[in-house]
Amino acid sequence: MTPTIGVFDSGFGGLTVLRALVARLPHAQFAFLGDTARLPYGSKSRRTIARYAAESAQFLVHKQGAEFLVIACNTASALALDAIQAAVPVPVLGVIEPGAEAARAASRTGDVLVIATDATVQSHAYAAACRALGLRALEKACPLLVPLVEEGWTSLPDYSAAVAVPDAAQAAPAPPQVAVTSEVVRIYLAELTADAAALVLGCTHYPLLRPLLEAAVPPGMRVIDSAEAAAETAARLFGQLASERPPFEKDSEQDPSAPNHGKIRCFATDSVEKFERLGSRFLGRSVGTVELVDLGG
Amino acid sequence: MTPTIGVFDSGFGGLTVLRALVARLPHAQFAFLGDTARLPYGSKSRRTIARYAAESAQFLVHKQGAEFLVIACNTASALALDAIQAAVPVPVLGVIEPGAEAARAASRTGDVLVIATDATVQSHAYAAACRALGLRALEKACPLLVPLVEEGWTSLPDYSAAVAVPDAAQAAPAPPQVAVTSEVVRIYLAELTADAAALVLGCTHYPLLRPLLEAAVPPGMRVIDSAEAAAETAARLFGQLASERPPFEKDSEQDPSAPNHGKIRCFATDSVEKFERLGSRFLGRSVGTVELVDLGG
Repeated sequence: MTPTIGVFDSGFGGLTVLRALVARLPHAQFAFLGDTARLPYGSKSRRTIARYAAESAQFLVHKQGAEFLVIACNTASALALDAIQAAVPVPVLGVIEPGAEAARAASRTGDVLVIATDATVQSHAYAAACRALGLRALEKACPLLVPLVEEGWTSLPDYSAAVAVPDAAQAAPAPPQVAVTSEVVRIYLAELTADAAALVLGCTHYPLLRPLLEAAVPPGMRVIDSAEAAAETAARLFGQLASERPPFEKDSEQDPSAPNHGKIRCFATDSVEKFERLGSRFLGRSVGTVELVDLGG
Repeated sequence: MTPTIGVFDSGFGGLTVLRALVARLPHAQFAFLGDTARLPYGSKSRRTIARYAAESAQFLVHKQGAEFLVIACNTASALALDAIQAAVPVPVLGVIEPGAEAARAASRTGDVLVIATDATVQSHAYAAACRALGLRALEKACPLLVPLVEEGWTSLPDYSAAVAVPDAAQAAPAPPQVAVTSEVVRIYLAELTADAAALVLGCTHYPLLRPLLEAAVPPGMRVIDSAEAAAETAARLFGQLASERPPFEKDSEQDPSAPNHGKIRCFATDSVEKFERLGSRFLGRSVGTVELVDLGG
């Protein structure tokens, strides 16, 4: 039987991680939960986030049969990875360590910039993960970028396009909405003056801004997507763990848009309509029917 | 004994309503609750918002002895006023009707523009309240304005300055952060082409943008602050109800900054530190020590 991978986020930004996972594990089954009734985690305390995240993880493991869990949420990875690992009996992978590892591979100088939400920055989880790898991280909270992405003021209609044509932002004059987002990015990055070789996107919403960010960073600075990095690590790890089950392994001949790819079921704790409407921008295809679940609280 | 007025918001934006109340009822006692563990209400369903708001109202009435309740939150007023009134045995006033009434006084044409959060607009509560008064309302969701205010990208350091010197925005060249907010305001208002005489601020964060909004609206269009309108109505209503208690009535000789003004106690369900740090911008003075409360969930 094909194993189920549980993917968890406080909202639907983590669909960028799911999208990257599907591309690498096209035959796996996926159950995605967005805890939309209690988002955003970014403005809440560690204690509260840990409780919410543990309840969400238990839903994916005990109710959906997930055998592996990817925490596709930087805030929950930063503040609650231990609590989640203690709450469920399956392997759990966050996005912080994979992001830091990808930064090490890209950074020649040892200096890394990290942009993220307030809560992720205040946790200094990226700084700790980078330090463990011998890197120095300069972290910067960018609270306006998530609402700008959710408002759709990006240069590209969805994450799929952001991945496929990173130079499309320069192709046509930007509408005023995109010019606002470019200016916000410029203001935030202007406060990061370190001589770094890599900029880590420490929030799962940020991949939709990748073209704008690549246009704004100095020449030679690499933009590292934690969503891609986490999916890469997850595919390797889960591939090892499930090596007895051939259909689970990556099939490079498989077209992810073909109808026989792995099944995705999406769950949300509230605002199912908004999830269905905006989720496709992050997943790069329709999220289908989103099922409402009640975790209490 | 001086009566206690309970003031409730999902966050701390409602402190603009509390500030306007304190100016009109300087001797009253106030208990303010921000349900910060569960904000923002704006992205949640009516059922969830009603439950959260009723629990919050019950805390203010049963635990803090509030004899009157002001719902200083447009989303909760729009979606949960009935549920709150059913949950507590004291008079409850929302911000929607007072805002609509102030718009009627200001609008010669009968057309009114309303800017608010997504949830408030989708509820069409302002449209209904305006229709009941013979007005036509054109509603527009402006999801970026709350995060811009919380990021501090406003022309003025706090609400106090916004009220005192509405022309200060033009006094000096705007820093790039304020220019971004001005451009966002311009983009949002450009989509509102109705020949209206009044623009209603249907979110308690928006008073901090009042100078930018007044600079952006066409000449002759009045900007109506629901926070001020609700405080005006509350002072009149509560003054009548408490007319047997002279210290409760407005004393125009009283300096609200004097040490013997009415006592304010602030409570929050999470993120007390952020409340204390940002709340003063909205209240126009220090919020003091914010007490953490657990409403469950």
